[in-house]
Amino acid sequence: MTTQAMNSILHDAQQALKSRLYFSAYPENPKAYPEDWNELGKTAFSKQLNENFTELDSNDSTGWIGTEVSPYMQVGLGVHYPQFTVETLISKANAAKTAWTSLSPQNRANILVEMLDAVRERFFEIAYATMHTTGQSFVMSFQASGPHANDRALEVIAMGLQELERFDHDVTWVKNMGKFDLTLKKNFKAISKGIGLVIGCSTFPTWNTVPGLFANLIAGNVSIVKPHPKSILPIAIVVAEMQKVLVKHHLPTSIVQLAVDTLEEPITKKLAEHSDIQLIDYTGGSAFGDYIESLNGKTVFTEKAGVNSVILDSVADAKSVFGNLAFAASLYSGQMCTAPQNVFVPESGIDTSEGHLSFEEVVQGIADSIKGLVENPKMGPFTLGAIQNDITRNRVLKTLENKEVALRPIDFVNPEFADTRVLSPAVVVVNAADKEAWSHECFGPILFVVKTKDSAESLKLTAESAKNKGAITCQCYSTNNDFCNIVEDTMNGVFAPVSFNFVGAAFVNQHAAFSDLHVTGGNPSGNASFTDALYVNRRFVWVGNRYMA
Amino acid sequence: MTTQAMNSILHDAQQALKSRLYFSAYPENPKAYPEDWNELGKTAFSKQLNENFTELDSNDSTGWIGTEVSPYMQVGLGVHYPQFTVETLISKANAAKTAWTSLSPQNRANILVEMLDAVRERFFEIAYATMHTTGQSFVMSFQASGPHANDRALEVIAMGLQELERFDHDVTWVKNMGKFDLTLKKNFKAISKGIGLVIGCSTFPTWNTVPGLFANLIAGNVSIVKPHPKSILPIAIVVAEMQKVLVKHHLPTSIVQLAVDTLEEPITKKLAEHSDIQLIDYTGGSAFGDYIESLNGKTVFTEKAGVNSVILDSVADAKSVFGNLAFAASLYSGQMCTAPQNVFVPESGIDTSEGHLSFEEVVQGIADSIKGLVENPKMGPFTLGAIQNDITRNRVLKTLENKEVALRPIDFVNPEFADTRVLSPAVVVVNAADKEAWSHECFGPILFVVKTKDSAESLKLTAESAKNKGAITCQCYSTNNDFCNIVEDTMNGVFAPVSFNFVGAAFVNQHAAFSDLHVTGGNPSGNASFTDALYVNRRFVWVGNRYMA
Repeated sequence: MTTQAMNSILHDAQQALKSRLYFSAYPENPKAYPEDWNELGKTAFSKQLNENFTELDSNDSTGWIGTEVSPYMQVGLGVHYPQFTVETLISKANAAKTAWTSLSPQNRANILVEMLDAVRERFFEIAYATMHTTGQSFVMSFQASGPHANDRALEVIAMGLQELERFDHDVTWVKNMGKFDLTLKKNFKAISKGIGLVIGCSTFPTWNTVPGLFANLIAGNVSIVKPHPKSILPIAIVVAEMQKVLVKHHLPTSIVQLAVDTLEEPITKKLAEHSDIQLIDYTGGSAFGDYIESLNGKTVFTEKAGVNSVILDSVADAKSVFGNLAFAASLYSGQMCTAPQNVFVPESGIDTSEGHLSFEEVVQGIADSIKGLVENPKMGPFTLGAIQNDITRNRVLKTLENKEVALRPIDFVNPEFADTRVLSPAVVVVNAADKEAWSHECFGPILFVVKTKDSAESLKLTAESAKNKGAITCQCYSTNNDFCNIVEDTMNGVFAPVSFNFVGAAFVNQHAAFSDLHVTGGNPSGNASFTDALYVNRRFVWVGNRYMA
Repeated sequence: MTTQAMNSILHDAQQALKSRLYFSAYPENPKAYPEDWNELGKTAFSKQLNENFTELDSNDSTGWIGTEVSPYMQVGLGVHYPQFTVETLISKANAAKTAWTSLSPQNRANILVEMLDAVRERFFEIAYATMHTTGQSFVMSFQASGPHANDRALEVIAMGLQELERFDHDVTWVKNMGKFDLTLKKNFKAISKGIGLVIGCSTFPTWNTVPGLFANLIAGNVSIVKPHPKSILPIAIVVAEMQKVLVKHHLPTSIVQLAVDTLEEPITKKLAEHSDIQLIDYTGGSAFGDYIESLNGKTVFTEKAGVNSVILDSVADAKSVFGNLAFAASLYSGQMCTAPQNVFVPESGIDTSEGHLSFEEVVQGIADSIKGLVENPKMGPFTLGAIQNDITRNRVLKTLENKEVALRPIDFVNPEFADTRVLSPAVVVVNAADKEAWSHECFGPILFVVKTKDSAESLKLTAESAKNKGAITCQCYSTNNDFCNIVEDTMNGVFAPVSFNFVGAAFVNQHAAFSDLHVTGGNPSGNASFTDALYVNRRFVWVGNRYMA
């Protein structure tokens, strides 16, 4: 990439951050890339299997480890990564600090954009790696781990650069004191905090990792990426490409390191508690997230679990709404942090433009839509993908016991991979009063239809749930504008965003870079947001020095 | 003020925030104001004495309290303020929320600027109130509590408005999906966190209070000001003027409330721990600051104690340097959070352009300069002001016991107030190894000259001290540019700012609004800074809503 191209992309990204209009620097359609990239990517992925991943700097490593399992094949990938002790990782990170902080923010931004360009060339390989670690479909794997992740990374580079250039850096300050001028030379420096640890999750190994990683880097912090032990390869490819760009610029590779561990011998806590780690980004379950937030003296950014609600009040076209809901609940088998879980429906049912639907008809409508989607062989398997792990699958099955189940998981076969770990979304009917059943997060393919007194109660429960358990998204279907306004105000008051009357190609699950903020940071689902100004400003400290002129 | 004037002042303030060039919206020279304002202000102050302060909304108050004592007269002021229960304060604050949040950020900004304009008309009265609560000299009282405080408040309004307008608020987002466009209407809202508590200190009752207060308000948070029980009147006048502007705009006065208490029956903890208080600003000692920072679920901004160091390496003109240091240590008798405490001097002494000075000669030079200042009847009493309370005075006297004292407190009389509580700065000589003596904060008029091996050790100790005990300022005198660079890098590395070679009218104590950041937030002297973007962004949460178009 030319410097001009980099400046142009950063400028466009900064404009988009302000305007919130649609912007993407990396096309999300696989067909927008050279025709042979898909086959090349597939082949490259296959070649990684049962081999050591040798693209990362492995100096001072103690061995090779890796325990990933494909949710599609349910066999181990056999990819092994260099293993390092925590002390080695920290010591290498410390050694790389000065080289990185001595670069100007603009120089760092250029290098980071160049890294994204290098990652772009491996989007297809990353897509297959994402499929076979997370269980996402190919299209989601491609989009989420490739262009969408790159866009999110570009977004924080753009935001970071803007913040780092907020103040003029060298200033001659002149104050008239009456008979004379007092002149001081001042400089303003954004001092990075040190070493950042970025802890990944098993379901979105790059999309949820690169925002924190690139935010650390633009602010001058060297970084250690600790991927989920079952979802390493996608981010390993990203980190490898980043290290190659560093080498090209004669910079230490340990500005970005990959810290691989196993479920049996985890190193996350040891890393997180190390006194040299100043910043921690975390995506994952709430219990570990709460532990991360409790660590003293760390700057912490978390995305934890939330319970996402849908308020069903009244609709224009019931079929489109049920279809939209069915897709949102089925996409990646409900394993998105933005997937809906609880659908609140008044016991008296809902009005539609084609007449009233009873509560039971609404439940049936949702169940039928999911059934139709799952049983559509051209749609179902590719929307649902695979279940990432057995824990998720077993938790959902266990939850169904002793419940009123409107739709049980449906048998279906993935036409490409016969051994895919699958589970189609179940629909459970519960009463509002049975909070024990629906009020906590049940990650995976399950939808609770919660019977309420009326829409006012639906809203009340949705707001309480967001406030107490967190919510990353919230959806409302209503043809009543006044009610929509009340929902918006009430939910925004507990710092949850609302999507209204989504049908067609608009899905509550999808958060677009440069426009949608992801997580607000204001409720228990997380303490930070992709990407507001706080997301970068908390990673460095402004210091102003003054010289007698 | 006209809307045009308000917009112009906000625009200029935003420009100054970026350029960091000299800017002030409120002249600091008392002579820049109408000639009769001084007399009028003095008279107004006198009329407040021994009366109830009736300018504040006293609805639902339970009585009248006030225990302030003039450090100049050492008699009680006799001013009594309405007293409220914590529950009343919270309930009134809650009742005012909607009226305040429903205003646009620009409307809030205009009202806040109008408040500052109203406060401006009472600068002289506030100055006398500040003198007789804090013990500051008249000029410092005028400047710090009047124009400089107003500038700091304007600064956060300008920064806040900029941040609240960071994103376009209403957006039509169009994404081309190939065969069709997906169109969503999006809105982005900055949701205020709720009620902010601003806890004041006894020495700078307005300067340290208004930044947090106006930052809360611009971000849409209603606020409760809890002044130090011995320093109420200056901020009571400010809050009264703010309430009057609210009334003029038909807004509830309880958008800003004053919560007065006494040392005997403090209400600060009860307020701070109340679940409805979401934001806390605090200025004061470290022990209570640490408690405030430890409260769960609160957004906290602290300015605590620091140990400010001076590195004396080499100088051009020793006399100017000693004079500058003497003034910095004497200004308000060392009771500024920015005052130097420890002066690190190599045991071999320092080079000057007029030859070498031994360690002993340096100590003597500093002591002589302070002595000269204190004993100058036109300078001394007005630079030193009064000691705010007996605790400070007794602590310093106690500290002198069993020490090598190069300059003992000098007897002097304030020509205006014979009963002034005074204590001139003492100079104590200690060895670097005697950390017990110099490494903790000793608030008040005392300077430790610390004998080090060499300037490298001076820097090492200064950096350690900033890292472990915090530092709001740091000063270095050196004619060696390479050493200055090392000092800047090292001290910035522990997030402390450095002022170099200040002589003449430049003093390390003075932090100018719109240019100097006050406290970095990166070391134990505090977790926030006047005024970076974090200072306002942490007070609200961005939420984005989406509507199917």
